[in-house]
Amino acid sequence: MNALAIPPRLLLGPGPGNLPPEVLAALAQPLLGHLDPVFLTLVEEVKEMLRRVFRTANPVTFPVSGTGSAGMEAALVNLLQPGDRVLVAVNGVFGVRLANLADRLGANTLRLESPWGRAFDRAAFLAAVASERPRLACLVNGETSTGVWQDPAGLAGPVHAAGGLLVVDCVTSLAGQEVAVDDWQADVVYAGTQKCLSCPPGLAPVTFSPRALEAFRARTQPVPSFYLDLGEILKYLDAGGGRAYHHTAPISMVYALHQALSLVLDEGLEARWQRHHDAAAQLITALAPLGFTPLVPEGERLHPLTTLKLPAGLDEAGLRRRLLVEEGIEIGGGLGPLAGTIWRIGLMGHNARPEHVERLVSTLKCLLGR
Amino acid sequence: MNALAIPPRLLLGPGPGNLPPEVLAALAQPLLGHLDPVFLTLVEEVKEMLRRVFRTANPVTFPVSGTGSAGMEAALVNLLQPGDRVLVAVNGVFGVRLANLADRLGANTLRLESPWGRAFDRAAFLAAVASERPRLACLVNGETSTGVWQDPAGLAGPVHAAGGLLVVDCVTSLAGQEVAVDDWQADVVYAGTQKCLSCPPGLAPVTFSPRALEAFRARTQPVPSFYLDLGEILKYLDAGGGRAYHHTAPISMVYALHQALSLVLDEGLEARWQRHHDAAAQLITALAPLGFTPLVPEGERLHPLTTLKLPAGLDEAGLRRRLLVEEGIEIGGGLGPLAGTIWRIGLMGHNARPEHVERLVSTLKCLLGR
Repeated sequence: MNALAIPPRLLLGPGPGNLPPEVLAALAQPLLGHLDPVFLTLVEEVKEMLRRVFRTANPVTFPVSGTGSAGMEAALVNLLQPGDRVLVAVNGVFGVRLANLADRLGANTLRLESPWGRAFDRAAFLAAVASERPRLACLVNGETSTGVWQDPAGLAGPVHAAGGLLVVDCVTSLAGQEVAVDDWQADVVYAGTQKCLSCPPGLAPVTFSPRALEAFRARTQPVPSFYLDLGEILKYLDAGGGRAYHHTAPISMVYALHQALSLVLDEGLEARWQRHHDAAAQLITALAPLGFTPLVPEGERLHPLTTLKLPAGLDEAGLRRRLLVEEGIEIGGGLGPLAGTIWRIGLMGHNARPEHVERLVSTLKCLLGR
Repeated sequence: MNALAIPPRLLLGPGPGNLPPEVLAALAQPLLGHLDPVFLTLVEEVKEMLRRVFRTANPVTFPVSGTGSAGMEAALVNLLQPGDRVLVAVNGVFGVRLANLADRLGANTLRLESPWGRAFDRAAFLAAVASERPRLACLVNGETSTGVWQDPAGLAGPVHAAGGLLVVDCVTSLAGQEVAVDDWQADVVYAGTQKCLSCPPGLAPVTFSPRALEAFRARTQPVPSFYLDLGEILKYLDAGGGRAYHHTAPISMVYALHQALSLVLDEGLEARWQRHHDAAAQLITALAPLGFTPLVPEGERLHPLTTLKLPAGLDEAGLRRRLLVEEGIEIGGGLGPLAGTIWRIGLMGHNARPEHVERLVSTLKCLLGR
């Protein structure tokens, strides 16, 4: 079990994607202690760069030491108390998961269901906000399971007026499609590193608005987690908090995120969003002649992850397996009610480039004998 | 904020320590998807190697996707329900944290306090087990805050007889001092990667006994976490569970752990334990002439982390800072009631070697003008 023999892969599934060489090199830098002033400077720089990528001035912006799902959990565990009402727009795996997690935390959860593959019904969402006055109103900006993009703009006002907070899942959208936390007036936004940031999985960038922080400070019951307790985390993360030990930061992952964020900001967010848009459009156009059609109507599409309905009669699992094992290209299958009926093709971060689309399309043509 | 400029450090604090070059190289390997058969083979090998390092046959043995504190949380969140009685031997930061976490989860927590720097009172612990019949009886095998080693042997029988489960924190002992999960008959044991395994922080190896798994299956209330829910995790981790998506495994960290475990097993556990024993003994002997004396009596010492009382009049914070900034050597200060009165010197994993002890001692002599 000694040597790692990692075959080369072009990772065009729902994440992770391939890493830029600079990020791989950052991972291999020697460790520092988590209280080393040099490391703390890196952490401060990561926080500042995350603010720029999230487009927020929120002081409380940092990477949670876990994957994107830990970011979701950090959002809810800090802001929910048993019995709180929670509204979740449910139309994919991550909406289902938000609602499931709210249930686990003892919330009174209201699911606003809509079909998988379409955006949620804004009017129904706002009606539920007004009538139910939920503590948290949650939606998924980029639904990785369906390829749907949902617009958080214009929701925070009514949510705040009803005494609640707006929670937005940006795991697959951050740095790939417009995310504007302060313009949205969103209160808690979480993401993952392994999608459009082109960083390994293992950290979850999060940001909490001052309003969310105030709600956290007003809790009457303890957070049912120590690891994710915002108050405990801030004692370490805030320069003013005395840098008290909370947990040992995942040093190598923070190096990688620092490097990945630098690359994102060097490119510029608008240019990066455009690159994701263009790659998705190229993919849809190129696969149309093979009989693949978009699941999601234009205007509701998540550019970093395209979902395609399959041509009739395709042995989708067999073909995906051949793509992976014979050709070294990973793509994703459908989940839940979409299993077997769609493919999920991620063109994320470093991978959102014409040459990768061309390689996938030409390989597919070859395998399909076209 | 572009280039990472990481200064060289000899990391002799409470963790992380320095990494072997093979582990750094593993981190920089290209990513695989978390459902890629090649990656799943690596995961299976990691699980098998962890069993050997934990000395257990427990099928449910795997790395939690978070640091050691997430391992602690995985243990308690899966096995506790509100109102359960929990006994914790408290004599350091990690005993305090176990009890705090049990409180957060709604347990009825009984703290068996003993002085920081001494092992817990076994007779009192067993008396409390018999009288209180706790659901969980918890102790810290290697208390990183005090340098105390506590023996879990001989406790499981009475705990089981009282209808409970034995939980042991091996964050700082695993692969540095004897850990024998099956001999101990411990039910849940968790560790961290950044101590004696010489892997970056970010994963928490855990193992659950069949008895613990049975208790988990008998829960009547949901686990108040999705990220750490053992049932959800096993759907992905168990080859028989269908490899359902739970969260995106931190691929690079799993590579590093695979490589680190291979190195541990190549060396052999007994040889590695002996190396940690010898390094600690060398350190204590070499620093005695400078007026440093062990906090912990022989027989209760955690070999990977030695705590030393300071000579009178030492400017300990200033000296630690000079060691770090001028000499590139990190050591740890005291925590809680021991702040300012002790040093914590870690000789862990790759770093438990005579040349590192010699470098620290000669540097200290020089700075102290001796």
